[in-house]
Amino acid sequence: MEKNSSNMIPLTENSPDKKEMVCIFGTGDFGRSLGYKMLQCGYSIVFGSRNAQTSSLIPKGTEVLSHREAAQKADIIIVAIQRQHYNFLTELTEVLHGKVLVDVSNNLKINQYPESNAEYLAQLVPGAKVVKAFNTVSAWALQSGTLDASRQVFVCGDDNKAKQMVMDIVRTLGLTPLDQGSLLAAREIENYPLQLFPMWKFPIYLAIGLSAFFFFYSLIRDVIYPYIHENKDLSFFIVISIPNRVCPIVALILLALVYLPGIIAAILQLHRGTKYSRFPDWLDKWMLCRKQLGLVALVFAFLHVLYTLVIPIRYYVRWRLNVYVISQIKDNRTDPFNNTNGWISDSYLALGILGFFLFVLLGITSLPSVSNSVNWREFRFVQSKLGYLTLILCTAHTLVYGGKRFLNPSLYRWYLPAAYMLSLIVPCIVLAIKFVLIFPCIDQPLTQIRQGWERNSKGSKQSYCNDSKSAV
Amino acid sequence: MEKNSSNMIPLTENSPDKKEMVCIFGTGDFGRSLGYKMLQCGYSIVFGSRNAQTSSLIPKGTEVLSHREAAQKADIIIVAIQRQHYNFLTELTEVLHGKVLVDVSNNLKINQYPESNAEYLAQLVPGAKVVKAFNTVSAWALQSGTLDASRQVFVCGDDNKAKQMVMDIVRTLGLTPLDQGSLLAAREIENYPLQLFPMWKFPIYLAIGLSAFFFFYSLIRDVIYPYIHENKDLSFFIVISIPNRVCPIVALILLALVYLPGIIAAILQLHRGTKYSRFPDWLDKWMLCRKQLGLVALVFAFLHVLYTLVIPIRYYVRWRLNVYVISQIKDNRTDPFNNTNGWISDSYLALGILGFFLFVLLGITSLPSVSNSVNWREFRFVQSKLGYLTLILCTAHTLVYGGKRFLNPSLYRWYLPAAYMLSLIVPCIVLAIKFVLIFPCIDQPLTQIRQGWERNSKGSKQSYCNDSKSAV
Amino acid sequence: MEKNSSNMIPLTENSPDKKEMVCIFGTGDFGRSLGYKMLQCGYSIVFGSRNAQTSSLIPKGTEVLSHREAAQKADIIIVAIQRQHYNFLTELTEVLHGKVLVDVSNNLKINQYPESNAEYLAQLVPGAKVVKAFNTVSAWALQSGTLDASRQVFVCGDDNKAKQMVMDIVRTLGLTPLDQGSLLAAREIENYPLQLFPMWKFPIYLAIGLSAFFFFYSLIRDVIYPYIHENKDLSFFIVISIPNRVCPIVALILLALVYLPGIIAAILQLHRGTKYSRFPDWLDKWMLCRKQLGLVALVFAFLHVLYTLVIPIRYYVRWRLNVYVISQIKDNRTDPFNNTNGWISDSYLALGILGFFLFVLLGITSLPSVSNSVNWREFRFVQSKLGYLTLILCTAHTLVYGGKRFLNPSLYRWYLPAAYMLSLIVPCIVLAIKFVLIFPCIDQPLTQIRQGWERNSKGSKQSYCNDSKSAV
Repeated sequence: MEKNSSNMIPLTENSPDKKEMVCIFGTGDFGRSLGYKMLQCGYSIVFGSRNAQTSSLIPKGTEVLSHREAAQKADIIIVAIQRQHYNFLTELTEVLHGKVLVDVSNNLKINQYPESNAEYLAQLVPGAKVVKAFNTVSAWALQSGTLDASRQVFVCGDDNKAKQMVMDIVRTLGLTPLDQGSLLAAREIENYPLQLFPMWKFPIYLAIGLSAFFFFYSLIRDVIYPYIHENKDLSFFIVISIPNRVCPIVALILLALVYLPGIIAAILQLHRGTKYSRFPDWLDKWMLCRKQLGLVALVFAFLHVLYTLVIPIRYYVRWRLNVYVISQIKDNRTDPFNNTNGWISDSYLALGILGFFLFVLLGITSLPSVSNSVNWREFRFVQSKLGYLTLILCTAHTLVYGGKRFLNPSLYRWYLPAAYMLSLIVPCIVLAIKFVLIFPCIDQPLTQIRQGWERNSKGSKQSYCNDSKSAV
Repeated sequence: MEKNSSNMIPLTENSPDKKEMVCIFGTGDFGRSLGYKMLQCGYSIVFGSRNAQTSSLIPKGTEVLSHREAAQKADIIIVAIQRQHYNFLTELTEVLHGKVLVDVSNNLKINQYPESNAEYLAQLVPGAKVVKAFNTVSAWALQSGTLDASRQVFVCGDDNKAKQMVMDIVRTLGLTPLDQGSLLAAREIENYPLQLFPMWKFPIYLAIGLSAFFFFYSLIRDVIYPYIHENKDLSFFIVISIPNRVCPIVALILLALVYLPGIIAAILQLHRGTKYSRFPDWLDKWMLCRKQLGLVALVFAFLHVLYTLVIPIRYYVRWRLNVYVISQIKDNRTDPFNNTNGWISDSYLALGILGFFLFVLLGITSLPSVSNSVNWREFRFVQSKLGYLTLILCTAHTLVYGGKRFLNPSLYRWYLPAAYMLSLIVPCIVLAIKFVLIFPCIDQPLTQIRQGWERNSKGSKQSYCNDSKSAV
Repeated sequence: MEKNSSNMIPLTENSPDKKEMVCIFGTGDFGRSLGYKMLQCGYSIVFGSRNAQTSSLIPKGTEVLSHREAAQKADIIIVAIQRQHYNFLTELTEVLHGKVLVDVSNNLKINQYPESNAEYLAQLVPGAKVVKAFNTVSAWALQSGTLDASRQVFVCGDDNKAKQMVMDIVRTLGLTPLDQGSLLAAREIENYPLQLFPMWKFPIYLAIGLSAFFFFYSLIRDVIYPYIHENKDLSFFIVISIPNRVCPIVALILLALVYLPGIIAAILQLHRGTKYSRFPDWLDKWMLCRKQLGLVALVFAFLHVLYTLVIPIRYYVRWRLNVYVISQIKDNRTDPFNNTNGWISDSYLALGILGFFLFVLLGITSLPSVSNSVNWREFRFVQSKLGYLTLILCTAHTLVYGGKRFLNPSLYRWYLPAAYMLSLIVPCIVLAIKFVLIFPCIDQPLTQIRQGWERNSKGSKQSYCNDSKSAV
């Protein structure tokens, strides 16, 4: 390295356009794309290949040599070949000694091999400094220059100087290097581009399941029942009316499910008298996808708001209001203003508006750039205090919507209660338990437990434990 | 350090799973949580404690020694004890010499001590390299792994190598280190987790005050007045009708207050003939919270939009339209279309829509990730040009809403003008002064002053001052 | 540097308040502002000026010396003078040897000079280590402390130590340094503050052009035609009714134009049988501004939603419904419910709602902080799969809106079809071609081509090319 770095400095000082030589093993699509891009950014490129003959595909201005010859020409070698072809590198051990080997490979499946490709490469060529990088960048993005998606390149490696050299290349290509630490991180980095919203799967499947259930439930009550009993064809209800019943129900249940695991955890901690026992696995996983649950709930709430706001534009609604006015004229009456109805109608709308507003606020604070700019105290205030306020407002919105109808037997069609009643079960349970948990006689021991206190080992309480932080 | 770093390299090369030994002083909740987490990430942990006996709370696989013994085993010592117990560290000065001391402590109040805890630690143990880190992370977050909030760990210290070692640990724990410079920054870092939206306090209190005033003002005019004079019970107005009067008023006033301090500053600069005199303190503070003022105004505008869009769904509104149609039938008349009303109704809605749209655009550009990706010229264009356009549109929206009613004496109940008239005072003043300020005869000297020119020292104008930048 | 850095360490260790001395060449506005700010942050400042006399403008606590004397006092010299005055620095070559020269200058026009100011400075003073920094910060922002906009300071330079020293200063001033690599990057950094939304120009001009065309088209059909043929004054339509026709049309066309270049590129690649030929320039530029096109389309869709939701509040709409009811009463009839109309009305509203929701989702994922936190597979899934779904839903929304009216000749006023029909042309073409492209017999060769396969050089296919990545 010494010789190389001393070579570099005069190079950059005397002729700033002359960039260092980089070798790329493999003339596949990704190797060529990376070569093109690096050529454009001023690097000299040499390709290492099994059959050292230039094809028309190889970028102009580069040469193709045998692996051994190419490796000798550069200090950085980008290994753009697939893991199953790595074996031949063992023959090059002495040539690659002290060189920086950049592993850019990906697998086809998550955790396909016991160790990461980069660690495997480091084992094959023990003298080389292996750095993992570029695996999250696509060949297409490198060529087209349309880097709308992430410009982040995760870099990891055990040798800091080698890592720094690779990160300099990343920067020169207009990308953002992110140091992920030692080569151990390569496994996670290799799995990363294979993931498709892993944290979102459970919330989305749950939402789809709930939506399907409540859709068919409402279909039976609101379309099939009137068709059988009154021979009315209300099939067009499946377009707006029923979705506008399903959306708020699913949103409310999902929102309550965001806060349920925290309550279960609190009960478990109170019961066990310590916070140092692990939660069951399902509870851990549930707690980790609370943000995603909340955002899916927000999507349903957003759709509910849009479906509700178009109500007065709907042909069916206009026709019904029309018929209502004409029927009053025919009967020569004017229905008087009912003050209770005025209160109920305005109250549930206002509660819904405020609940939706707080919900949107929660959604905005969960944007990465916003949640990064608040501290823990602020984040907890928004997500916990404002979150519960949102749940209270949305539950109240549904309760007031029910209004006087709760006990009206005519709404129990085929003994099925209205769907919104079912949606109230989970939120009401969550709010009831939470209400109990904030009583001082329960809140105080819980706070103590969360600060590290244990019921069975009072003697071990440290006098100078750093309690101020755990109280956050 | 030399010996240690030469030891590290073979360790990571030969056995990448073997991480370095870290010592933690203090077996309180935070110390144990950090220990757990570091154990999981492959570090070897030794605890230093006054009474060197292992309790059930201590993570398995670690040992508890006296402070002195523990400190000798590691190069990095995390001091997870409270500031008031730091004194005993003076006895360990020679053991701690050359070691990295990581201060993770927080205070209970902002600026509790004259110097930061980390600087105090550096004074107590002069030979050690003190680094401030981890104080913004909560014990709970470390244990549960639910790092939804900020993953940022602020790191500062005077020794770059020590800082780098700590930042490597931070990265290994899956967090993002942020280098904040020298140990002087520790004070700010220690205050950070104690803050609860400090910049938002003034805007929110102001908004609450204005809302309360206009709420009671509207209550008197719209509920109490009709109750006394016409014996009409319109008490349900307090749910939607009055909030929908208060929200746009507060939004408009707050939006005008975003631009008022800039205008006051311009007048002050013109009056003083220099920009190098300090503004009064209240003006400085006001200017610093303009973004927050604008976002609170956006919240009220958002609520106003929702309250307005539900109007046609309200029972009261439907009943009134109903009664209106029936009254026309009874009188056997059809009210003709009034073209002026058509124009006014559509105009104020269109102005409101465009104003709200620009307001949302301003809000989006104030998101950290968006404002970071625009340059100063673009940011000024959006926040100043589009901001004033928003103010003009919203003021026009209110003026057109008033329409023909301005001079209608029947709307002056108990000599109180309609609330929206009061809301127009501040915006109209701001727009009038701004209109004067953009006249060339006033704009030109102001631009000169802002480029560094002084009325009283024309001789000192540099011929090569970097004017192009200050004109931004 | 050796001597200096060994000097620095004891300084910071013994007296942490004593910061290093920094020299600023030029006492113009920016130089003074930067001096003020650095003084506040604890640096010692000395100004270098042609006439070495302190004026009242110079911050207190600093001194003004000749350039030569000032340069000797510090290791870092900030050159806050304009490029055309750089020549005198050649006289100081020996004084400046080995020192860090920070170029903060900007130009008045993009690409004003053949080389960047920083590179020019490096040529003038070959012995100095030139670092580009601070040019994106405004003097006003430094003084007022209102750093609402970007806190990012782009730093580039060929000497890593020098760059690190400048980045430390940047951090101490509370700003975020961004290492942009070698001094070659200075050109881009210097152009950056002069740009005003360069990527947005084409989408915005296109949107304005389309809006103007469809505005006048609708004006002729909906205002001028009824005025001439039925003598009806519907001029107030230009406030809401016509904008609400123009907005959805422009939104739909722009959304289709986001996906058209991808389809053209696919046809070109299929025709050429390779992906290694360059696209025409217009296609490249078009592909690079697709995100901006999509966001402008979202703006128009958002306005369309707001314009639509206020429909039932409009005086004109209420009056028309009113007249409709009264006419039914007078004719003593009640129009029966038309089931087809119910279906059509609800369907186009539901399609619009779902389309708008997906559109908003696309917009949110294009926020920098969100798109940075997804991987390529996820980004492609959202922008391609969900994007096409949005286009399908929005096109279907428009088609169903047309409903039974398509063939109604009474809607062809002056032989002009309704505007929404014109808006369907581009989306339908895009969707039709895309539908053809996903047939296996066409999709398969296209995928092969995109993975680097060439029709004319089958022999050169590598057996171990890194294909898994290019398939992303």
